[in-house]
Parts: sequence; C-alpha cells; structure tokens
Amino acid sequence: MQAIVDFVLEIDRLKGVTRKNKPLGQERYENSAEHSWQIALLALSLLPHAPQPVDGARVVELLLVHDIGEIDTGDTMIYANVDWAARKRDERAAVERIFGLLPPAQRDRFLARWAEFDDEATPEAVFAHAVDRAMPALLNLAADGQSWRENGVTHAQVVKRIGPPIEAGCPALWAHMKARLDAAQAAGWFGAATA
Amino acid sequence: MQAIVDFVLEIDRLKGVTRKNKPLGQERYENSAEHSWQIALLALSLLPHAPQPVDGARVVELLLVHDIGEIDTGDTMIYANVDWAARKRDERAAVERIFGLLPPAQRDRFLARWAEFDDEATPEAVFAHAVDRAMPALLNLAADGQSWRENGVTHAQVVKRIGPPIEAGCPALWAHMKARLDAAQAAGWFGAATA
Repeated sequence: MQAIVDFVLEIDRLKGVTRKNKPLGQERYENSAEHSWQIALLALSLLPHAPQPVDGARVVELLLVHDIGEIDTGDTMIYANVDWAARKRDERAAVERIFGLLPPAQRDRFLARWAEFDDEATPEAVFAHAVDRAMPALLNLAADGQSWRENGVTHAQVVKRIGPPIEAGCPALWAHMKARLDAAQAAGWFGAATA
Repeated sequence: MQAIVDFVLEIDRLKGVTRKNKPLGQERYENSAEHSWQIALLALSLLPHAPQPVDGARVVELLLVHDIGEIDTGDTMIYANVDWAARKRDERAAVERIFGLLPPAQRDRFLARWAEFDDEATPEAVFAHAVDRAMPALLNLAADGQSWRENGVTHAQVVKRIGPPIEAGCPALWAHMKARLDAAQAAGWFGAATA
C-alpha cells in the first residue's frame, strides 16, 4: 500500500508542470494534470465520432497517463524546434522511474498504456492523439488565439502540425476545427506568415 | 460537434474551482480538475485492493465527472457544517445544465455516471468514494496536515468522516491510513480535540 501512496504523491508534481494555454478567463497557465482530466472527458464525448470503434476505457487510460513523463522533462509546445527523439527518450526514462514506484502489475499496466499512446499504432492511440492535439487549439479558438499569439505560431504551422493527427483520429472534429481555424486566420488572429 | 466543443469549454471552469489542499510543495490551492485526474489514477492503482471485483473503467468515469457540479456550487470541505441535501440539489441542477450542453447520448451517459457516484450504491461507486475521500488525507499526511491545520480539523473528525467510506470501499487502504493518522495525532499535527 505504501508503494501506491508513494506513486500518487509523486504524480502530484504534474500539477506543477505548466503548459502554454491558460484556462479560459484565468491569468495563470494550465498544468498538465488538469489538461489530462479535460481531454479524458473530451475523448468520452467524442467517442461516437471515432472513425472506427475504439475501447473508450483504454482511450481514457492512455490520456490520463500520457503526460506523466513531463514531471521530469517539463512540457514542450508541439510547435517547438526540439530534438523530439531525445525528448521521447527522456520521457520514457521518466515514466519508467515513476511507474516503477508501483507494484509490478500496476507498473506494467501504466507503462503499457504510456507506450501504446506513444507508439500511435492502435485505433485507441490514434484517437487519443487527435483529442490531445485538439484541446489546446479549441482553447485558443475560444481565447483569441492566446498561446498562438504569445508564441508567434502561424496558421500554416497549426494546420500542418495538428491537422494530420486530428484528421486521422477524428475526421469530423478536424472538419469543424479547420473551418474555424480558417475563419480565425481571416479575422487576423495569426500574424504574418513569416515562419 | 459544436455541442461537444461548448461542453468541453464549459467544464474548463472546473480548473478554477479551488479546494482546501495545496499540491505538494506549491503555495496555491489545488483545483477540482487536477484532483479528479489524480484520483482516477489512484483508483486504477488501487483496483487490486477493491474488496470485490469492480469495473475499473466505470470507476474512472465516476471520478472524472463527480465534481463537475462544483462549477456552479464551488467546493465544500467535507468537514463543513452545511445543508448537504441542499448542496446536493444544487449540484444536480448544475450537472443537468452542464451535461445538457451535450448531445443526448453523451449527456445521458455522464448524468448516469454522476448519479451513480452520488447514490453510492454500486460497488464501483463505493470504491470511488473511498478513493475520493482518501486523497485529501494522503496529501495532508505528506504535508504536515496542511488543510487540517488551516481549518481546525481534529483527528476525531477525520476518522469519523472519512473512516467509514474508505473502509467500506477499500479496507486495506483504510488500515494503512488509520495507522498513519494515529501516528500523526501522536506527533501533534492535530490541535486539542475541542470540536
């Protein structure tokens, strides 16, 4: 039992990993723990729009654990120019450390979920990626492009980076978002396309 | 699709509902969104210790939605002296409003989960309640009794209020916690038992 308590107190640190979006109407930046909660509920809400049947329970688990490696690495915006392979290696080392606090059965379950999300090979993982990629853009679309403006992200970057994974995992969602992104561009939310 | 987007932006407000515990090492109070994420993972970790088999996926859903009514009502500490029946009515009105933003199938799914948690009648709901009740105490036990001290909560109040639900839903967890609560009392974390 102490092992489980140690684990749940260790993951408490994800509440201190800040992302680039702000909760609507708040001045602070959101953290990866509350983000994980929100996308789990978005996924359950979007299940009828999955392009093929997916196991909703597994999707939720993928999303609840997928950011835990950030406890050691911090969050990296998907538009950042970083060595993503090195970043993934660091995240894997982190989750092996953190899930390793648990008894073997629970450790193996969470490691398998984390790896399934990371591999993006199963229908559940593809759907989960779509949901994870969509949420920051949905917040931006409701907040005058807050994190895009702050980080100089262009419309072309957004469409190129999040379009393919969202379209692959949830085409109906992407159709909705693409129309709104184009309207946002027309409204001048994005700066000149210099990037 | 717009209905689902409206819903996920509405529940964004749960990130602004503050509770009485602080994330470990942080000065701010935690919010109900990140709390919901943490207890979903605690529940999955504790599944082998459920006194009877439970559907882990449903437990997770109960926990992900159980606090959403607080968007309208705010969080109330379980040691508070309030009209709990009135509070529950307000929470039910809130979740009917918020889940009502969704298409009927998703609305009905989440309303059913919220009501199942609230009724505390199924093994899943009893287990979920145990996990929800345990988490603030586990944080306090790791933080010198932070929210107990700040709110003048006694050892007797803690044992009386959270002991029965935790013991009912996860006896092994309560055995662990009771020993630690008694040690905390012996160490003087709780003030004189005047309440």
